[in-house]
Amino acid sequence: MQVEIITVGYEILQGKIVDSNSAHIARSLLDIGLEVGRIVSIGDGETEIQGAVRTAMRRSEIVIMTGGLGPTRDDITKHAVAKLFKMPLVRDSVVLERMRKRYAQYGYQVMSENGIHQADVPKGATALPNPSGTAPGLMFLRRGRYLFMMPGVPLEMKDILRESIIPILQQQVCTSVVAVHTLRTSGIGETSLAETLDPVVRRWKSISLAYLPSLKGVDLRLTWRGRSRKQADRRLQAAADTLYQHVGEWIYGAGDEKLQEAVARLLQETGSTIAVAESCTGGQIASMLTDVAGSSAYFDRGVVSYSNKAKQQLLQVPAALIRREGAVSEAVAAAMAEGIRQRAGVDIGISVTGILGPTGGTPEKPVGLVYGGYADANEILVWRREFGSHRLRNKVRVCHKALKHLHEQLSKKL
Amino acid sequence: MQVEIITVGYEILQGKIVDSNSAHIARSLLDIGLEVGRIVSIGDGETEIQGAVRTAMRRSEIVIMTGGLGPTRDDITKHAVAKLFKMPLVRDSVVLERMRKRYAQYGYQVMSENGIHQADVPKGATALPNPSGTAPGLMFLRRGRYLFMMPGVPLEMKDILRESIIPILQQQVCTSVVAVHTLRTSGIGETSLAETLDPVVRRWKSISLAYLPSLKGVDLRLTWRGRSRKQADRRLQAAADTLYQHVGEWIYGAGDEKLQEAVARLLQETGSTIAVAESCTGGQIASMLTDVAGSSAYFDRGVVSYSNKAKQQLLQVPAALIRREGAVSEAVAAAMAEGIRQRAGVDIGISVTGILGPTGGTPEKPVGLVYGGYADANEILVWRREFGSHRLRNKVRVCHKALKHLHEQLSKKL
Repeated sequence: MQVEIITVGYEILQGKIVDSNSAHIARSLLDIGLEVGRIVSIGDGETEIQGAVRTAMRRSEIVIMTGGLGPTRDDITKHAVAKLFKMPLVRDSVVLERMRKRYAQYGYQVMSENGIHQADVPKGATALPNPSGTAPGLMFLRRGRYLFMMPGVPLEMKDILRESIIPILQQQVCTSVVAVHTLRTSGIGETSLAETLDPVVRRWKSISLAYLPSLKGVDLRLTWRGRSRKQADRRLQAAADTLYQHVGEWIYGAGDEKLQEAVARLLQETGSTIAVAESCTGGQIASMLTDVAGSSAYFDRGVVSYSNKAKQQLLQVPAALIRREGAVSEAVAAAMAEGIRQRAGVDIGISVTGILGPTGGTPEKPVGLVYGGYADANEILVWRREFGSHRLRNKVRVCHKALKHLHEQLSKKL
Repeated sequence: MQVEIITVGYEILQGKIVDSNSAHIARSLLDIGLEVGRIVSIGDGETEIQGAVRTAMRRSEIVIMTGGLGPTRDDITKHAVAKLFKMPLVRDSVVLERMRKRYAQYGYQVMSENGIHQADVPKGATALPNPSGTAPGLMFLRRGRYLFMMPGVPLEMKDILRESIIPILQQQVCTSVVAVHTLRTSGIGETSLAETLDPVVRRWKSISLAYLPSLKGVDLRLTWRGRSRKQADRRLQAAADTLYQHVGEWIYGAGDEKLQEAVARLLQETGSTIAVAESCTGGQIASMLTDVAGSSAYFDRGVVSYSNKAKQQLLQVPAALIRREGAVSEAVAAAMAEGIRQRAGVDIGISVTGILGPTGGTPEKPVGLVYGGYADANEILVWRREFGSHRLRNKVRVCHKALKHLHEQLSKKL
């Protein structure tokens, strides 16, 4: 089964945006056993679009297009393809009604002429609902070949793909099963993981392991291909167990679970309440913890104590301690964690203080130096780590380091 | 002049990596007036590579390939193309010597057989130095058409592009200039912008306008094409001025400037210090403000007052007020902003309180309802807006709404 992706839009050809849509589509298709053979990016011109669609549909059974389906003048994908297939455009009353509601929700009484045109569907094509935007996706089925069209806005593309296109392909096209199981690690590098796991994996036959590194950690993706979903689940579970045996201390979750979600789960399971005191991460740790719906049950407060005055006022860190040890120090990290814990009256306080860069370091305290604290009723712990000099990358890494440390402490309470 | 990019590698087709190389190449070429007409991603197969190169060189005067030039077994781009062009591989002594030095630098005494093959150059092609890796880039010139090849590792690709390919193209090929200017808006939708601007833009001849929407706002990108960089700048400036006249109240910056950077600039220009009190955004606003290097000069603190107790303790919001009006109310938003301003002793306090969802709403206070406050020495302002029901999307939108409101107030102080 040949699959091809076409992305439409000069923004991509001009390098104004990076085409992350294609990677998302490719991954989603791979999960249901469909492999993409080619990705083509073209501009917004009518002949370009028609040429690319014609070639792709000769070559591939499934063609997925994104881009050029919005309300503005330069969004012409639909018209170009309708013309190519000689399908007249017909106003779809269901789509129109759905759009009217959405516009009303945005506070518009009247839809513009451009807006209304989004409800025009090529005769014979099927409109696919767009849960997060106005322009619907479209499906064309011609001589047993599928052409899907989605807006290029990532949110809308993802929703239409997940809710319409994947289910349609699963029902109508897929025969073999590709099963994927992902374990998520944090705090250990790709090279170290590979040194431990490669000798193990080499003995496996039907399962492959990929290392997917990011600033947040390294995902371990296990892939199995065959005919039975049941067999897939059994084999993948066995493989995952093996990975746990070897690198379990670094694994915090599976699938799409984020570190903050794994932490949230442990906070609930241990019945702990928490508060956060941050300096260099600027509120990002609190923000991650409260990304999880229902976090108000255990998250009491966060304090971003950027100034030393704030550290004294809000966290009762003694001024003398800051003077003696410096704001970025083991002692201040400990005092911040214990300070917020006591002030907030919660079970656990965590803290972070450091120099994220790109400037502000000294020979003794270089850019990238970070201390983190953890305090509960029984103990106060401090970790120290040196990160790089890239401010925003450091920030992501520090937040994950702090939450991974918290995750380890909570795991011990279970 | 037709330009085409070919990226080689199953990692892209499987969605394991996002192809950010193409965007970088496209931007770099655009800067010297060359527009990419097509980007094609294919797998590591010999026939696939040969087919893609053949088609591309028929269609385009300049073809730029990345991927499949490293030392590992599956890196076959060079061999496939040498075979296609019937060029024997010849060991290049200059490349070999350069590689030997680099391997020694890495601490290897002996190069592996695979490593040495990287010094083999198709006869008639030119090796392009790789300042940050071992495999050189390659240039083929056939019947006046250029084919460039680079490794897929972003760092190496960028170096070879900048140091070899761009200078070669500038000397041998370039004649025209394409100039781009982007204005960034927040708080207004693509459709509303288009309704206002489309009639204006329709009269323009040499300049085109594209709308690039995201959760954070809509970018307005102006593109001009011609012969002189000077003329480009003048025309684009005039066009930007026109956009300001029509939708200026929504524009916060230009180019790559983020909203928090535009706000940071205004805080510095007005000499204002600031503190933030957040509930539903969980620290994200403080985090955005402190993403900007040097923010400790004006950012004093943030408080994430998730619990009502925290609102009382840290922001001095009266318990009676919360009881009477509810935590999500105009009065509490105002009290939070003024409370943090006074406690922190700063010039400006801003606040946000709301129900981000997906649950927790009531008929009077639905999911998505958010109030924001702004307080300085002279006034306290409150905004109110209803967002959707998607927690994380709401969060991004609310943060941008709050910072846009702050930007407007700061602009008045200039």
